[in-house]
Amino acid sequence: MIAYRSLRVALLGGGSVGAQVARSLLEDRDELAHRVGASLDLIGIAVRDVDAKRSVDLPRELLTTDAERLILGADVVIELMGGIEPARTYILQALNSGADVVTGNKALLATHGPELFAAAEQVGAQLYYEAAVGGAIPIIRPLRESLAGDRVKRILGIVNGTTNYILDRMDTQGDSLEDALATAQELGLAEANPSADVDGYDAAQKAAILASLAFHTEVSVDDVHREGITAVTAAQIASAAHSGHVVKLLAICERLIDPDSGVEGVSVRVYPAMVPRSHPLAAVHGANNAVFVEAEAAGALMFYGAGAGGVETSSAVLGDLVSLARRHVVGGPGLTESKHAGLPVLEIGKATTRYAVTLDVIDEPGVLATIAGVFAEHGVSVETVEQSVATATPGGESTAILVIGTHGAREAALAATVADLAANRVVARVASVLRVEGA
Amino acid sequence: MIAYRSLRVALLGGGSVGAQVARSLLEDRDELAHRVGASLDLIGIAVRDVDAKRSVDLPRELLTTDAERLILGADVVIELMGGIEPARTYILQALNSGADVVTGNKALLATHGPELFAAAEQVGAQLYYEAAVGGAIPIIRPLRESLAGDRVKRILGIVNGTTNYILDRMDTQGDSLEDALATAQELGLAEANPSADVDGYDAAQKAAILASLAFHTEVSVDDVHREGITAVTAAQIASAAHSGHVVKLLAICERLIDPDSGVEGVSVRVYPAMVPRSHPLAAVHGANNAVFVEAEAAGALMFYGAGAGGVETSSAVLGDLVSLARRHVVGGPGLTESKHAGLPVLEIGKATTRYAVTLDVIDEPGVLATIAGVFAEHGVSVETVEQSVATATPGGESTAILVIGTHGAREAALAATVADLAANRVVARVASVLRVEGA
Repeated sequence: MIAYRSLRVALLGGGSVGAQVARSLLEDRDELAHRVGASLDLIGIAVRDVDAKRSVDLPRELLTTDAERLILGADVVIELMGGIEPARTYILQALNSGADVVTGNKALLATHGPELFAAAEQVGAQLYYEAAVGGAIPIIRPLRESLAGDRVKRILGIVNGTTNYILDRMDTQGDSLEDALATAQELGLAEANPSADVDGYDAAQKAAILASLAFHTEVSVDDVHREGITAVTAAQIASAAHSGHVVKLLAICERLIDPDSGVEGVSVRVYPAMVPRSHPLAAVHGANNAVFVEAEAAGALMFYGAGAGGVETSSAVLGDLVSLARRHVVGGPGLTESKHAGLPVLEIGKATTRYAVTLDVIDEPGVLATIAGVFAEHGVSVETVEQSVATATPGGESTAILVIGTHGAREAALAATVADLAANRVVARVASVLRVEGA
Repeated sequence: MIAYRSLRVALLGGGSVGAQVARSLLEDRDELAHRVGASLDLIGIAVRDVDAKRSVDLPRELLTTDAERLILGADVVIELMGGIEPARTYILQALNSGADVVTGNKALLATHGPELFAAAEQVGAQLYYEAAVGGAIPIIRPLRESLAGDRVKRILGIVNGTTNYILDRMDTQGDSLEDALATAQELGLAEANPSADVDGYDAAQKAAILASLAFHTEVSVDDVHREGITAVTAAQIASAAHSGHVVKLLAICERLIDPDSGVEGVSVRVYPAMVPRSHPLAAVHGANNAVFVEAEAAGALMFYGAGAGGVETSSAVLGDLVSLARRHVVGGPGLTESKHAGLPVLEIGKATTRYAVTLDVIDEPGVLATIAGVFAEHGVSVETVEQSVATATPGGESTAILVIGTHGAREAALAATVADLAANRVVARVASVLRVEGA
């Protein structure tokens, strides 16, 4: 097969992913031309500073600070700048000029996705974004196409490598959160300001993207209930391990029936949860990512791999580019984003989850009955109770530790239960409340 | 979005997958129409016997024995009959009449793939086959599109659920091969004649399909080195477990340099091998499948899920149908199969693998030196030696068990080593030779 035409590719962003993409386009030119049936000509790389130091040497003559001019001459624009602006404006310019776009910009998609998809649809241009979730892991295309004839019931995703690294170290090395975070920062896995990762913002953006795709429904990052890992303690990790669980920061996208109205909706939430050790997600170590999908017909599927890294993520970008370029070559428009279902997004209070509640209680007769009574009052059904041996506090009071596992309960009922427990005379302290998923 | 036209879908085969596909097309008609932008009209189901008993009730008026006539009126033909003929003839008829085709027929693709892809390319029709490998697991599309800009180095696949179930039972329950097979047969996981599974034919077909896609090279099932699991013993499983390994039937597709000619080629082989317990594939239990892919940029990826089952596999078929129908709706031809690389397929003697060799040896001084000498003679480097305590045979001779782990060695060198070991006076028996992969 001989390349019979060429496609002009503009790259926006010369960071770790962008530089790798540029390198592959230049070094693997012939091989890519064979795969596409056309040559992919990198016509320029828009950067903020052409003199900045980069991990990969880029040809000086390709660098430019004039992104808008570069976009005007392109058939395909690859946006790897990140952030909302000017990325949003550039992508809209590209689409409106008829160019196809590949992006890995999760923040932008999770906030302005509908606007971008509408712009693409209007002119019949393509917008691909495999790199936005799970780095190198193919998850967008499987959801968008492979499962297009199935119905996704639930997604449990480990979609943030930094927090998985931290929680994995706490589990396997017994580190405190602070020590594990410091190690992650030393290794370059966490930023100096780690908030985007540890507070769950990054995972929430990815959850919004996954839920939108899986449920054919527009879900914005603002619809996502978000809790980070900063409150996770070494004691919680140890207690989870003791009961055969591991704590993971999960992005959960679930199709469910609103228990109040009976209407079908979706629940999208990010929080640390206990996962049984036997679950495939429990074996996802280090900074790896994995997305566990439960579909009506397909059953349980899992997609696993490197969730970040410039080289790894460049694989997803190039896969999008080649797929898109092939369609460009053979003509005809491609996929449009499906949002026909338009399901309501339910607040977290509508979701039903199992919980593990750890209490320091006064060690006296009748305590268990009192505690059980509080749960029963709020309609929260208790599945397991584990009581440790009593210990004496410095104040001379004798206390015991109770770990109570519940059946599925609603957020609101559990919150009310915990509030009442905290106020109860026999409870010295609510030591931990953690959800249990994947069981 | 409103369906603005319709696509006529013909189904060939009313078995467990076919019946599920038919049911979904009928029951989920509206939802599928929304996703595609056109209605999918099931115009008929070609079966051998319209009166046969089926797992799913199919409308009698859709059943026909006249497949050829059905094909003539179809926009899309779904072939789920299995076997070579008449499936091959029907698919060629469909493609030549301009219809797109979805198939799950691994046997046909692994033997006549190039003929079918050429026929599709000639008329600009599409041939999709996600269901042919890994049941519900999206693996064909990720290889074909997501990794289209990357370079696959190696695939290690658990692609046969029956043998994985048997080996998993032997590992976790201590069953013999015979008992595990009998249980699989009772559960309907293995056929009365289990040869296609236990002799590795099914896995070899899937290996050929994966290798063709991953390496852009035509690989036929005849190119695949194939060993089944019938020679795997409970003792081998126990010995593997002892050294932290689990035995899996692997489909291995590898890009490598011919050590003799220096030319790049591919090696495709199926055999039972020891996998370290820490490897993600070791955690694939029961009848599940998983495909572990190592790519140059993406690094290690794994795709996991149900490898068989009518309902599960119907998800892959419907995903293909919807993807294909969407392209049908928006116009323009789609993907053609890429075989531009055309790498030579190397015989197994060219591949380098690590081995674990278990020997019953005479217990006398100097035996280890003798054994080590035999390995050295053939240039096979020994990595580990483990010697068990000596035991006396009924004949009064004292023997010991030696387990020798090698570094990477070529098949031919190892075979010569084993032949010499078997003929050596100090070796009572070569108890086991197993390859080690994924380490």
